[in-house]
Amino acid sequence: MGILLKGGNIITATDSYYADIRIEGEKIVAIGSDITQSDDEVISAKGSYIFPGGIDSHTHFGLDVGSTVTADDFYSGTKAAIVGGTTTILDYATQNKGETLQGALKQQFEKAEDKCFCDYGFHMGITDWNEFVNSEMADMVNVGITSFKLYMAYKKTLQVDDGIIYKALKRSKELSALIAFHCENGDIIEVLIDEARKNNYKSPIYHALTRPVNVEREAIARLLEIAELVDTPVYIVHLSSKAGMDCILDAKKRGVKVYVETCPQYLLLDESYYKGIDVNSFEGAKYVMSPPLRKTSDNLALWKGLSYGDISIVGTDHCSFNYIGQKDIGLTDFSKIPNGAPGVEHRIALLYTYGVLTGKININQMVALTSTDAAKVFGIFPKKGTIAVGSDADIIVWDKDYIGEISAKTQTQNVDYTPYEGFKQHGRVKYAFLRGEMVVIDGNVKIIKPTGKYLHRINGR
Amino acid sequence: MGILLKGGNIITATDSYYADIRIEGEKIVAIGSDITQSDDEVISAKGSYIFPGGIDSHTHFGLDVGSTVTADDFYSGTKAAIVGGTTTILDYATQNKGETLQGALKQQFEKAEDKCFCDYGFHMGITDWNEFVNSEMADMVNVGITSFKLYMAYKKTLQVDDGIIYKALKRSKELSALIAFHCENGDIIEVLIDEARKNNYKSPIYHALTRPVNVEREAIARLLEIAELVDTPVYIVHLSSKAGMDCILDAKKRGVKVYVETCPQYLLLDESYYKGIDVNSFEGAKYVMSPPLRKTSDNLALWKGLSYGDISIVGTDHCSFNYIGQKDIGLTDFSKIPNGAPGVEHRIALLYTYGVLTGKININQMVALTSTDAAKVFGIFPKKGTIAVGSDADIIVWDKDYIGEISAKTQTQNVDYTPYEGFKQHGRVKYAFLRGEMVVIDGNVKIIKPTGKYLHRINGR
Amino acid sequence: MGILLKGGNIITATDSYYADIRIEGEKIVAIGSDITQSDDEVISAKGSYIFPGGIDSHTHFGLDVGSTVTADDFYSGTKAAIVGGTTTILDYATQNKGETLQGALKQQFEKAEDKCFCDYGFHMGITDWNEFVNSEMADMVNVGITSFKLYMAYKKTLQVDDGIIYKALKRSKELSALIAFHCENGDIIEVLIDEARKNNYKSPIYHALTRPVNVEREAIARLLEIAELVDTPVYIVHLSSKAGMDCILDAKKRGVKVYVETCPQYLLLDESYYKGIDVNSFEGAKYVMSPPLRKTSDNLALWKGLSYGDISIVGTDHCSFNYIGQKDIGLTDFSKIPNGAPGVEHRIALLYTYGVLTGKININQMVALTSTDAAKVFGIFPKKGTIAVGSDADIIVWDKDYIGEISAKTQTQNVDYTPYEGFKQHGRVKYAFLRGEMVVIDGNVKIIKPTGKYLHRINGR
Amino acid sequence: MGILLKGGNIITATDSYYADIRIEGEKIVAIGSDITQSDDEVISAKGSYIFPGGIDSHTHFGLDVGSTVTADDFYSGTKAAIVGGTTTILDYATQNKGETLQGALKQQFEKAEDKCFCDYGFHMGITDWNEFVNSEMADMVNVGITSFKLYMAYKKTLQVDDGIIYKALKRSKELSALIAFHCENGDIIEVLIDEARKNNYKSPIYHALTRPVNVEREAIARLLEIAELVDTPVYIVHLSSKAGMDCILDAKKRGVKVYVETCPQYLLLDESYYKGIDVNSFEGAKYVMSPPLRKTSDNLALWKGLSYGDISIVGTDHCSFNYIGQKDIGLTDFSKIPNGAPGVEHRIALLYTYGVLTGKININQMVALTSTDAAKVFGIFPKKGTIAVGSDADIIVWDKDYIGEISAKTQTQNVDYTPYEGFKQHGRVKYAFLRGEMVVIDGNVKIIKPTGKYLHRINGR
Repeated sequence: MGILLKGGNIITATDSYYADIRIEGEKIVAIGSDITQSDDEVISAKGSYIFPGGIDSHTHFGLDVGSTVTADDFYSGTKAAIVGGTTTILDYATQNKGETLQGALKQQFEKAEDKCFCDYGFHMGITDWNEFVNSEMADMVNVGITSFKLYMAYKKTLQVDDGIIYKALKRSKELSALIAFHCENGDIIEVLIDEARKNNYKSPIYHALTRPVNVEREAIARLLEIAELVDTPVYIVHLSSKAGMDCILDAKKRGVKVYVETCPQYLLLDESYYKGIDVNSFEGAKYVMSPPLRKTSDNLALWKGLSYGDISIVGTDHCSFNYIGQKDIGLTDFSKIPNGAPGVEHRIALLYTYGVLTGKININQMVALTSTDAAKVFGIFPKKGTIAVGSDADIIVWDKDYIGEISAKTQTQNVDYTPYEGFKQHGRVKYAFLRGEMVVIDGNVKIIKPTGKYLHRINGR
Repeated sequence: MGILLKGGNIITATDSYYADIRIEGEKIVAIGSDITQSDDEVISAKGSYIFPGGIDSHTHFGLDVGSTVTADDFYSGTKAAIVGGTTTILDYATQNKGETLQGALKQQFEKAEDKCFCDYGFHMGITDWNEFVNSEMADMVNVGITSFKLYMAYKKTLQVDDGIIYKALKRSKELSALIAFHCENGDIIEVLIDEARKNNYKSPIYHALTRPVNVEREAIARLLEIAELVDTPVYIVHLSSKAGMDCILDAKKRGVKVYVETCPQYLLLDESYYKGIDVNSFEGAKYVMSPPLRKTSDNLALWKGLSYGDISIVGTDHCSFNYIGQKDIGLTDFSKIPNGAPGVEHRIALLYTYGVLTGKININQMVALTSTDAAKVFGIFPKKGTIAVGSDADIIVWDKDYIGEISAKTQTQNVDYTPYEGFKQHGRVKYAFLRGEMVVIDGNVKIIKPTGKYLHRINGR
Repeated sequence: MGILLKGGNIITATDSYYADIRIEGEKIVAIGSDITQSDDEVISAKGSYIFPGGIDSHTHFGLDVGSTVTADDFYSGTKAAIVGGTTTILDYATQNKGETLQGALKQQFEKAEDKCFCDYGFHMGITDWNEFVNSEMADMVNVGITSFKLYMAYKKTLQVDDGIIYKALKRSKELSALIAFHCENGDIIEVLIDEARKNNYKSPIYHALTRPVNVEREAIARLLEIAELVDTPVYIVHLSSKAGMDCILDAKKRGVKVYVETCPQYLLLDESYYKGIDVNSFEGAKYVMSPPLRKTSDNLALWKGLSYGDISIVGTDHCSFNYIGQKDIGLTDFSKIPNGAPGVEHRIALLYTYGVLTGKININQMVALTSTDAAKVFGIFPKKGTIAVGSDADIIVWDKDYIGEISAKTQTQNVDYTPYEGFKQHGRVKYAFLRGEMVVIDGNVKIIKPTGKYLHRINGR
Repeated sequence: MGILLKGGNIITATDSYYADIRIEGEKIVAIGSDITQSDDEVISAKGSYIFPGGIDSHTHFGLDVGSTVTADDFYSGTKAAIVGGTTTILDYATQNKGETLQGALKQQFEKAEDKCFCDYGFHMGITDWNEFVNSEMADMVNVGITSFKLYMAYKKTLQVDDGIIYKALKRSKELSALIAFHCENGDIIEVLIDEARKNNYKSPIYHALTRPVNVEREAIARLLEIAELVDTPVYIVHLSSKAGMDCILDAKKRGVKVYVETCPQYLLLDESYYKGIDVNSFEGAKYVMSPPLRKTSDNLALWKGLSYGDISIVGTDHCSFNYIGQKDIGLTDFSKIPNGAPGVEHRIALLYTYGVLTGKININQMVALTSTDAAKVFGIFPKKGTIAVGSDADIIVWDKDYIGEISAKTQTQNVDYTPYEGFKQHGRVKYAFLRGEMVVIDGNVKIIKPTGKYLHRINGR
């Protein structure tokens, strides 16, 4: 006995066609033009799109940032994920300086286990380097952590120097692993923040002004030089600017291999959001994230990047803090505002509404950007990331007739605001299947207990 | 009753998985993990790749170049195509100056009808411009000719000026059609040829020396300025150089939309081939084509272009002339050597052997480059270009264990040489299906009468 | 007996110092810290700058454009020149299609002889090509015409094709001569004008809209490709855009050698001038010139070009037509408005006021841009273009305390408007010497009969 | 009573003419076409060029590098300078970490005082940052040290981080001072050296291999981003590569203001010199300097940079160590070889012989590159850097008929080798005047006691 999903318009990164899908257990077992199987449960997908379950390759659930812990933990975060059509998330475990990768991983497992409504994996953030870390990188790969992360920003906490970048890339090349990079020049940011504070600048807009576009472009250029020296691919997270995009294109012209991720906020929001209602408003704190929001010309350049294939992945960098009670830690000092914003729930709807329906990207590109390419890059393809025989039955039936509005009031995310408040939403999840089990109906989670599993990843392409 | 293709490794532009394929009539009707249907003919594809039938978007069969007619007509050319795994070709009809598009199309239909072993469509070459041509462009789209071609080279015969390029692009934008461009500056080439002839330079190498890379880059830059003015996509045929590639990348950075095609000869051969055995050798004539072969650094840049997605289509510009009896028209004057070389038969094998097996591209990219993207760009997707339920059963079962060598002696192409003589060939067509009918077994055509049909194309993406 | 110019601040392209200058006959014979010579006429230059006489390398005096003849002939034009501190002009003789260079030169000599208040030379415009023209180029060099001009715009009248550009550059390389280029794509402009006229667009703004920046950048890119092929320097007249500037910088990175000229109008005026008082206003006609005025961002990019040495010459393209009686030929058809604007009189004052005093360029750069570099490039250095012993005593004593306003009412130019009406003017000519003779005092011409001589130029650097 | 230098061909950055020069005391007082003054000492310069005295803006005399002290101190170094036509040098004082600028300056004065055969000034190297250093920068400007230096390489000794670069540039902007930068990424170099040593790589070639061109381009790109943020000009010392040059050109396109210096070694020598006679040879140690020698394509790109004005200064980075007794400290460990090579003596002759006589640059450019531009950039113009009335009589009479060969045997530099051994030398100093005093005749120093004075510099342009 299986499930027969009938008459949907199946969309993959390449294809678009009408067919029935048959699920048996956790897998897709057949796709056909008119499948009949007497004992199957038949579900109609007529008039709907069928997408592979979304993959958000960039979340921070249950993240302790010192002064506070993110509003969303793995439970609420992954619940929001599936509501939005995302059936896999990749979160970041992060080594504390002086500690082991193994330790960081253990902590992260404890946070995630039995709490995830979708399947999950981890990247490992490295903040310290020594021979033991070098050796642990192989251990990580062996347990399915095939991607790492280094920070070029956050001096004194997360930031590593160029020598470590070089050594870690050498090691990642040996292991055929991939390293993701947060590209902002932390040394300069620190000085700019000091300057601003000396000048008694306090409001959220100074978060943006102390992280100008030059510090992103600079870090990208530097990273890509090191990547060229080592001759190995790198992954750039949350690209925010046209300057950064152009810098990447120049390096690719020389032959540097780089995968690029951006996030909905860098496509849809701009620096005008920092201003809030008036100059003393703290509303801008909702948009305090790193890198900061840029100009509309940057938005456009990033949409072009999606359309032209220069950016292959849209993650969210979901990192939520309540406006009341958390963001306001920085009420009188912008530099203390916890960095980050929520997004995991609305990623696919935003891409669909503001990308596909406006013609900025086509629907196959949307699937590639929100699912397929992340699956390939991070080593879970074709188990995840496509609608094909043999793949996990992670399936989104997308009700394209739904019209609504994004609002904190109605969201599943456990946070008191959304940066997309009032944004139109066209389309939503009619049904979401996770490994063959229906977990969402019409935007509501229909299961009680989380059923997400850890993903032991292999090396991606 | 249908055909059941069992156990192959299905490769699309995105996917790679093992499954059975069921064909009914001309279509793929089901893909499943273990399909059983009692009355089907069962064919094993175990151990083989399954590709969508190849699409060669650039052939010249039965082309009259004034002094002679190509060695391959539609009959021999399409026969060679299917042997090589190409089940669709797009050939060029070309208006004569002062004549109508309708007239050119009629002639081309006469040449192709009932002679094609694969499905076929036409692009329409425009060499003259007036109000009537402007109006005929719509007629062409109405009969399925949704792509056109303009030549920036071949002064006095095919070349159009920049005003016509502008006007034709405006019109193509109105019609949502696409124009392909031969990008070489014909004015300069004419002068360089005159210079060479005055200097009594006669041997084939002067073909290359009178078409330096600058004339390609210049024409590309010019075209992309006009495309930017008109704000419509363009298609560049047979890109041959790194300089041209970089020029395209710079224009894309500004937002210009352009599809790029290259050919196996520009990936695998270089200008050293013009030298032949000694300086007076005429061997180089085999490689006289336009644009000419370049340097190995250009080959590498184009491979990078394939790998990075900057080039999306590999056609052949198949245009064959016998070395003895045709190429030798230019024995004492390089400028009289008929331009062109054969290739339709070996395109996929060359990409597989020298691209996939060397790691320069992956196997999904190979499928995209040789089939899927051409289908999308030229408006025949998803009928052609993929392995999906509802698509035409144009299927290649690829014997990956075959090892051979390319040679004129064994080729199906009706021409007395191949530019790839002695090249290794790994893999070949075990079975080729055209709309459900098996037409090739183990590299041999198994049908007598051509069954190819004309493709009424719609506007591509 | 000579003239002793005492106490001025001598400014050359390199130097800035206080010294006395002694003139004997037509030459500077000594520069010293305190020269005394009993029988000299002593003139105080205390508190003034001393510049080498200006060189305007781009004027069109007495030019017949078919429908009318420029308002300024050589008499009024050169009179305005010396009033403004320009003691040398280089005007354009232009071959008519089908006629000889010799014929064009003869006509130009007839127009200029005995009518010039400053020294003068000619560039030779070539509009037609054949063996005889090829041979005449050497004749021109022999009589001191060492620079030529080709037009990439003005289809059917002046425009040449790329083959002619190539051949003329080859010839200029043999002769060590230099060719100046008007870089706009005439084919496209013609089509855009046709389009505009079909749409019944009539007002002057359409002059600008039918000559978009793309047609300038395209022509520059094309020219520089040909120059690279021929491997010889070229000269670009009246650069108007940032896009063009960047295109030149890219070519220079590859090694192409190019001299660049711009004009005050492209530094100081922008497209807003076309709008006039209201949309139906014809005021914009005053600014109808080719290339047209651009955006303020283009102005800034060109100022940067001056400051960074990417542009080495500021000419005027002086080509004056009265607003009443000449510009209004195009009252109901923008494409009939005679192209051009006056400027020879105000060039140096504009550069001084808006360049030097604003800090955009320094005063040595001003001298280089308005005099020295033109002298070097066009083969009249060090006779002209500097303040040095042995050079012609073409000397401007610049009253830096003068403050006035530019106005048609007070100008010497024989035209009923100036594009700089109402512009502030700081500084003016206190004395101008032409080969040792004082010809201007406090902005007034003090001689009756013109004394300018023809300059037999040699090949420039 | 003065000195009358008769009949020379005076060459400045702009001019070239024949005239007499009259010197009175330390100054040039007159330049004239035929000066007679009865009581002057008359010296013939007929047949010679007359250049302004050379300025070497980059020397390290008496530098203690820890393991040893440079072979040339101020005495021998400046003696070699004047022999080669250089009458001004700018050396580097360098703060030790934790110490004051004042202290470093005091030490440097002690080393230089009464020992200099030419005039001299200092740049101040900053290696540490705090409020006191910030304040001392103004003190330095007040005593004539208007330029500073920061190192992006030499981790743990000289290197500063990006935050310090930002702060120092902010401060230099306030003071209208200029900062020079050594652009190599020290973090990466350190790792590469560690790698090489672990691999037991010992020979001098590994010096070059551990400082690849990427580390120079990266540092340049980073610096120019910071300069853009601060909006102030910067100075790049000893540019060595085409990659670096192109990176600079790209930043200038955006508007970044940067002065660029290269050295004769990067124009004339390449990495083949590291190989020595055989692989185990230590000869390569003579060329161990940072950045290292590059490829011939880099040489060519830098020559183009000189010719096109993209590089405005040629210094030497003279830093000499004997091959026997000093360089051999690194006999079994390339990383211990003292960095640097001699050059102050041969700079002008090399530029003249290999630049001017080959046509790569013209003779005015040579003067600008070896004298004028350094004078302007570093605030000693027009006292130094030109031949003009009122300027110091620092004059080189250049015997252009001399033909010789560069050799350690005949050099004045106090070091046992020269990297230019066996290089042809055309031209040499016939007479050198320092502030009116003749100090060199025919390549021999004719005074016993050094007469050089400290130059209190003002802010340069």
